[in-house]
Order: sequence, then C-alpha cells, then structure tokens
Amino acid sequence: MAHIKLKNEELPGIVGLLNYRPETAKPLLDLAETLLRGPSELNSGEREIIAASVSWWNQCHFCHTSHAAAAAAHLNSGLNLIDDIKAGLPNTPVSEKLRALLHIAHQVQKGGENVSEADVAAAREKGAVDSEIHDTVLIAAAFCMFNRYVDGLGTWAPEPNEAYKEMGERMAFVGYGKY
Amino acid sequence: MAHIKLKNEELPGIVGLLNYRPETAKPLLDLAETLLRGPSELNSGEREIIAASVSWWNQCHFCHTSHAAAAAAHLNSGLNLIDDIKAGLPNTPVSEKLRALLHIAHQVQKGGENVSEADVAAAREKGAVDSEIHDTVLIAAAFCMFNRYVDGLGTWAPEPNEAYKEMGERMAFVGYGKY
Repeated sequence: MAHIKLKNEELPGIVGLLNYRPETAKPLLDLAETLLRGPSELNSGEREIIAASVSWWNQCHFCHTSHAAAAAAHLNSGLNLIDDIKAGLPNTPVSEKLRALLHIAHQVQKGGENVSEADVAAAREKGAVDSEIHDTVLIAAAFCMFNRYVDGLGTWAPEPNEAYKEMGERMAFVGYGKY
Repeated sequence: MAHIKLKNEELPGIVGLLNYRPETAKPLLDLAETLLRGPSELNSGEREIIAASVSWWNQCHFCHTSHAAAAAAHLNSGLNLIDDIKAGLPNTPVSEKLRALLHIAHQVQKGGENVSEADVAAAREKGAVDSEIHDTVLIAAAFCMFNRYVDGLGTWAPEPNEAYKEMGERMAFVGYGKY
C-alpha cells in the first residue's frame, strides 16, 4: 500500500499519483510526452530504451517494465526486450551511438557530475550530435525523478512482464496525455 | 564550458539549457512553478528549503544557491540561509514538521526505496498531512532531475552567494514562467 491515501488505490505506479494530484500531473505528463514522443533526433524506441534502462538502474520495477514495454511496442520487438534491458541489451540490435548514449545516461543516473568530457567525446565519435546528448541527459535525469516519485511514495506495481504489454502499447501509440 | 554548444554561453546553470531547448523548457518551468509557487499546504519558503537542501545533497552548486536564495527571499531571512542549509539549518527557526519532511526528502535523494513507513509515521507525528508528504517527495524527486540536468551537461555557475540574490528574488516573487 502507498505511503499516502490515494483516491484510487487500484491504480499502479505513477498512475495513482497523477490521479491524486492533477496540478502536478499536467507538467509531468507534458514532460514525458515531449521527451519521449516529441520531435527529437533520437527515435521514440531509442528514447524509451534510455528511460527503461535508467529505471532499471534505479531499481524501479514499474517504470522499468512499463517503459521497456513501450520501447518494445515502438520497435515491434516483443516483450523479451524487458529482460534484455536488464542484461545490458546483449540480444537487441542497438547502434554503437545508442550504446555510447546509454553510458552517458548511466553516468547521469549515478550523479550529474559523473559525466566526463571523455564520455561525451566517445558518444560524438559514434555519431551523436549535441541535441542527442542533451536529450539523453534530460531523459536520464527525468527518470531519476519519476523513479523516486513512484518508489518514494511506496506505490504498488504488477509483477509479470505480460501485465505491461497493453500499457506499453498505449504509452507508445496513444501517448502520455492519456496515460 | 558546457558539454554541448549552447545558444548563449553566458547564461548560467539551467537557464542556458532552457534557452537551448524551449520544447522541454515549457514543462520543466511549469513543474517548478506548480511545485514551488502553486497551491500547497507547505508555504513557498518551506518548499524552496526542501529544493535547496536536496540540491546541496546532490552537490549542485547552481540549484542549491539559487533556490536557497529564493527561500531567503520568501522568508526575508537574509542570504545567510544559503550556508545554513549546507549545515542542516542549525541557525534557522524551522518547524519540527519541516525537519521530519526534510528527512524524507533526504531519503528520496538517496533513492525512492529508502523512504520507510517509519519515516512517514515520524512526519505524521509532527503534524504532516498526506499532501505535504506527497509534495515533499515530488519536490525532492524533481530536484534529483534538475540537479542532474544542470551538472550532467556541465553548465557553469557563478561562485559567490551574493551573485544569486537578485535571481532568488525573481524566482520567489516573479516566478518560474520568467526564469
């Protein structure tokens, strides 16, 4: 049970929190929509992989599984991607550029000061441009917020990967206005 | 110098980043405005103290100093508050409720899973209600984002406390629409 009395305790993860406080839900959803589905040099599948990876490093089961399911929907890859993200994507065809950006995202997850000039130079060498480095850092930072919001208030989350299939499809194809 | 080429390299901290990417600036500013200046059971001075404390724990000089200056403006306390926040507020009259909420914020800063039922019960014992616990967790989580955004992209920040006086007053009294 969550640390606070939600209006609808059946709603899992961030969904119950967005329902609890609509004033803060609006900018949070606008941020997710813009970051993950708005115009960007990175496609939405890549951005959802960054979001899901950061959520996994933060050990946030709800955010990791739902955003990995959204990535799977964008990439039409099947739900195996959820566990493959946990393992560092050994079985998913991922560009060297995205791997370098994921390394930057991991540094951000540990703390902003950890991102070094060498990390950024390595991503540039694999073809990353400034706007992709920007979006990677902001997505990683944003999920350090979403993950803490969801776990800091002790929300519940369905366990099995399959429970996130439809949610991931909705996040990918309908978007975060109708979370 | 920042890790990416900003449009205006003179703008410090998050200001240069908001200017670089207006699409993401909008929801980020809306979130700050709602969280720190919108309706809440906590007054804006208390909320800015939470924001500044989390930023200090994350070692983000720009966010800590600017939000501590905003708290000082709200509370009309003088800029000594900036250093007092670093020391854990020994010289600032702060309610026991706010101290209990700051402990929850510190747990969130370390990771969402760290918030225990005992932490929440201790805050309730000092008079905290659900909406205050909610807002504390979300402010702490949000500054784990803002801090990582600012430091992960290697932005510059003025050093002395005095350089943040006017900025803090603007954040407190004009707000985050005109950051």
